[in-house]
Amino acid sequence: MTHETLGSNAEAGASAGLVATQSVRLFDEENPLVLESGETLAPVDVAYETYGELNAERSNAIIFCHALTGDAHAAGHHGEPKTDGWWDSMIGPGKPVDTNTYFVVCSNLLGGCSGTTGPSSIDPKTGTPYGLRFPHFSVRDLVEVQRRLLKDLGIERLYAGIGGSLGGMQILQWAIDHPGEMKNALVICASSRLTPENIAFSSVARNAIMRDVNFQNGDYYGTDRQPDSGLSVARMLGHITYVSEQALERKFGRERRDTQGPTFGIDFQIESYLDHQAEKFLGRFDANTYLYLSRVMDYFDPFADEEAAVARLRENPTRFLVVSFDTDWRFSTAHSLEIGRVLEQAGCDFVREEIASPWGHDSFLLPVPDYHQLVRDFLAGKR
Amino acid sequence: MTHETLGSNAEAGASAGLVATQSVRLFDEENPLVLESGETLAPVDVAYETYGELNAERSNAIIFCHALTGDAHAAGHHGEPKTDGWWDSMIGPGKPVDTNTYFVVCSNLLGGCSGTTGPSSIDPKTGTPYGLRFPHFSVRDLVEVQRRLLKDLGIERLYAGIGGSLGGMQILQWAIDHPGEMKNALVICASSRLTPENIAFSSVARNAIMRDVNFQNGDYYGTDRQPDSGLSVARMLGHITYVSEQALERKFGRERRDTQGPTFGIDFQIESYLDHQAEKFLGRFDANTYLYLSRVMDYFDPFADEEAAVARLRENPTRFLVVSFDTDWRFSTAHSLEIGRVLEQAGCDFVREEIASPWGHDSFLLPVPDYHQLVRDFLAGKR
Repeated sequence: MTHETLGSNAEAGASAGLVATQSVRLFDEENPLVLESGETLAPVDVAYETYGELNAERSNAIIFCHALTGDAHAAGHHGEPKTDGWWDSMIGPGKPVDTNTYFVVCSNLLGGCSGTTGPSSIDPKTGTPYGLRFPHFSVRDLVEVQRRLLKDLGIERLYAGIGGSLGGMQILQWAIDHPGEMKNALVICASSRLTPENIAFSSVARNAIMRDVNFQNGDYYGTDRQPDSGLSVARMLGHITYVSEQALERKFGRERRDTQGPTFGIDFQIESYLDHQAEKFLGRFDANTYLYLSRVMDYFDPFADEEAAVARLRENPTRFLVVSFDTDWRFSTAHSLEIGRVLEQAGCDFVREEIASPWGHDSFLLPVPDYHQLVRDFLAGKR
Repeated sequence: MTHETLGSNAEAGASAGLVATQSVRLFDEENPLVLESGETLAPVDVAYETYGELNAERSNAIIFCHALTGDAHAAGHHGEPKTDGWWDSMIGPGKPVDTNTYFVVCSNLLGGCSGTTGPSSIDPKTGTPYGLRFPHFSVRDLVEVQRRLLKDLGIERLYAGIGGSLGGMQILQWAIDHPGEMKNALVICASSRLTPENIAFSSVARNAIMRDVNFQNGDYYGTDRQPDSGLSVARMLGHITYVSEQALERKFGRERRDTQGPTFGIDFQIESYLDHQAEKFLGRFDANTYLYLSRVMDYFDPFADEEAAVARLRENPTRFLVVSFDTDWRFSTAHSLEIGRVLEQAGCDFVREEIASPWGHDSFLLPVPDYHQLVRDFLAGKR
């Protein structure tokens, strides 16, 4: 298939020893993507980036799966405007996932809005963006699209798969569904089953988007009315759950801006932070993608039939690393304990560790020393 | 002053030995309310209810202060349509606050939307509703309006003041500001200082309201566009914080409605619950009141100057009961511990207790046996 370089960042990427975002059509009318639901989708284009070099044995590939609001730009420093990859602290020469050793692939997820086919893409049947006519899909579908990408890149076995949050859910599903394909599975602050509280937060975020009068039932593309209010509120709410109470205390406390007493504007620094997060998000994210990917998380439940799951995991050769952070209250250690419980029952080879970090769910993106050392050691087989 | 009975519920109220909602003008052009900020406000009407009989010594009065979304209808079963008072499990004949013994008063707060002057009231200067031109006010102002109501009812000293959440904040402020006026102060799942996370949740709720395109900068009254979307989202979000994770797990789990797989409607029972809460709320609450009262909570900080607070509390004759619930994560026990710490430093007579209850912040409104026994015993001087 033809791989196309997106944008004019090849030079920037190359200068850092990295490749800029590329795009490839993985499914077309003749070979559509067949979703777990049975529905088909075509064409499906996928945006991806790679870092490092695939070795001759094709044995050093690592897939990174992104979380709810991620994209293919996991590492390096490029794009227009130039931005750091979202997991640049983890991936690169000399970093925990050392691109002098490993060949790293990261793609924008199915349903995404950063180069991969999603609800903002043109539906060939109508010539207009899918909007809410885009089919629902599952974590398994997210995995299958990425497996096809790897096949296209000539990769049949992975040295490792790594993901945090929704990313970790994909890694877990991948390792369960395809024994032997992933040597090491790093499942970081993920969940095998959202709690009703988790679902509630996502539901409120979706309500903020869908009740926005500018949402127009998802057909806001190309109109002069965008559901920016709803998407802002969703993002602000998300950020509360990404950060621990103590991190907010440490970073903002009750510090005020220099206002003269109560207003309904931005009086407290914490309000300024939330407002800034919303503002940044609007420029890069699509409201419909938020709906689809958050709904995918709600339904993820690979251990629903626990007996079957345990049976499937028996003799699975994958080594699992299950990591949580002590202050993460979005997917607390209880979620990781549950994953560990099932892996243990199935006799899997796994390490489960809770890392101390004040930053809550966000910790997985931050250079927490114990955590980075753990990832490095686990990949080297020292853990 | 003239006390007017609101609505046609006198009979229903009387039959239960209760009085229906009444209204009284407490401040007028000649005697305006002077707010802590120095601004003045007039007229100020206050809606209130009373239960039980004031004794001859006028020594058995108890004030109940309501929380963010409460009203004067704390007990009994009346109104149109008939509704239970929001704290009916606590107040009534034979109940923990026994109306055979005590005379109970509860009023709708300043800034409210259920009979007391607030942003939806007519500004006499313009002849139109205040909207966001209503002045900002403080917890101290909330207290002063209620003190004036009591004065008008001929009550100079209170046997007790009781409040949960924002209600407890008022009780705390009252006891600090007016030593000797309140014999017993029951401060229930309250806070002396919101954390940045608390403020963040309120900020997102306010953003949902104010970014709603139908908000019209607060001047939505009488138009055909109301900020219902924003108010719904605010309410849903509030409810997540009122209930503990384990209560949601117990009540809803991951139970689904009978849908055929993913939709963006109401797939999970928890979503149905949130939707129902939003729906009920829209009929009875005003978005601007939500803004004002939540902002009041953000700024509440009676121990900001701790030395001064301790000095003021010394030799305060009030007995304090400070109650928290182990699963309350809106105002966790840490908030009550902080109140207790300052009371202890000042040598106050106080009992601080954490009650085990699975229901989170909502517990204060529920008939949790240990909690009700504690309130009963404390009022009887047995604790």
